[in-house]
Amino acid sequence: MADGIVYLVGSGPGDPELLTVKARRLIEEADVVLHDKLPGPSLALVPDEKAEDVGKRAGGERTPQEYTNDRLVELAQEGRTVVRLKGGDPFVFGRGGEEMEHLAAHDVEFEVVPGVTAGVAGPGVAGIPVTHREYASSVSFVTGHEDPTKPESAVDWAALAATGGTIVVYMGVGKLPDYTAALREAGMAGDTPVALVERGSWPDQRVAVGTLASIVDVRDEVGIEPPAVTIIGPVAATRARVRAFLASPYESGNEQS
Amino acid sequence: MADGIVYLVGSGPGDPELLTVKARRLIEEADVVLHDKLPGPSLALVPDEKAEDVGKRAGGERTPQEYTNDRLVELAQEGRTVVRLKGGDPFVFGRGGEEMEHLAAHDVEFEVVPGVTAGVAGPGVAGIPVTHREYASSVSFVTGHEDPTKPESAVDWAALAATGGTIVVYMGVGKLPDYTAALREAGMAGDTPVALVERGSWPDQRVAVGTLASIVDVRDEVGIEPPAVTIIGPVAATRARVRAFLASPYESGNEQS
Repeated sequence: MADGIVYLVGSGPGDPELLTVKARRLIEEADVVLHDKLPGPSLALVPDEKAEDVGKRAGGERTPQEYTNDRLVELAQEGRTVVRLKGGDPFVFGRGGEEMEHLAAHDVEFEVVPGVTAGVAGPGVAGIPVTHREYASSVSFVTGHEDPTKPESAVDWAALAATGGTIVVYMGVGKLPDYTAALREAGMAGDTPVALVERGSWPDQRVAVGTLASIVDVRDEVGIEPPAVTIIGPVAATRARVRAFLASPYESGNEQS
Repeated sequence: MADGIVYLVGSGPGDPELLTVKARRLIEEADVVLHDKLPGPSLALVPDEKAEDVGKRAGGERTPQEYTNDRLVELAQEGRTVVRLKGGDPFVFGRGGEEMEHLAAHDVEFEVVPGVTAGVAGPGVAGIPVTHREYASSVSFVTGHEDPTKPESAVDWAALAATGGTIVVYMGVGKLPDYTAALREAGMAGDTPVALVERGSWPDQRVAVGTLASIVDVRDEVGIEPPAVTIIGPVAATRARVRAFLASPYESGNEQS
């Protein structure tokens, strides 16, 4: 077994106060913190001298996953205590599963430190409960852009619609027209409430609300950009009912709907 | 508007280090902390003099939701700073949505502080990624026991199976035979990996792994009890592949499979 250890750590949605106590401690104790861009404002907690950015490389290209995998093993073999800091939770669309299996295959000890995922936190801080006893018995998290190299690359939007639960789409700003159309084709009503939460819990959070029929226009009018999550289902309408009493440290009057 | 404020706060899955930094701070600053049992070991962080248990009342009965709703309003009207501490995340099967709407309907200001939900954390600390680029493009969270007063009380297990993604069942120990049967009837293969994580991140965490066909027997042999989450899908098999390298502060040799 390698002398070092790798902690696969979720940073939460962005607000540095939404890191777990354990994530904060491990960042302090680590020799090296490998991170990409998604932790957002939380990155201010990582001292420059131990930060290693694997989200971008010289020339603006994305670092290949293989590089990150190998770098984690290399650092552990050098005996380092490594934090692999990932946006949200390491195992919710974070490729943490691949990193974990790579570490195990190379005799590297690791520990998993869960974080608050954006698909729960984004809606939450905006006053949208992803489940509700009366009208959402389940919630499904899905990515808006899938691995295009997969043989069956399409998410089954019809099946997701048929669950009757809330659907939360990560990284779904660009393909919003495609999957809202797919959901309507699957029989979901055009007046189903839909919300977009951009940079949830960041100081410049933005929220836009519409319906399955209107949300593409709303996105364009408001100018919602990645990173954002899309919330589809009756729960998205709760925000309008509670907003007057919602204390939010994240919205500074820049909201459009 | 009432003078006080209510913070709807997620406590995370149980480990006191898996609270967010913000949750810790708000517990320190609060006048009163209303909690039930689910935060588990995290409750040690709440000083006795500000703790108010709404999970149980004299005589062993559960506190009605209406009592909790009214108590939150009452405390806020008295000008108190109130933390409503809920296991996991307040909006994932936590009835936080109902509390939020009740507060807004009674002119009480509130803020939502998301937490790490058990359906992500339990599998995570056990070495099970709920999504995986190769074989789980989505994850659905569902409750094992639904509101029986709902007209259409059944979760659509066939639709959940048809998504092709991971299914995570909260509070699903007792009805495990029912929904595993429903999933098999819906065409899900009997050899689909299934894991049970009991008290994920608690000092006495236990994990049991089987298949859709075997998991009820495994549950009975191991004696898995609530609270636990059930993870259904290929991702449940990752644990066996990585376990030799998984450093866990939670498992003390009491695991059975």
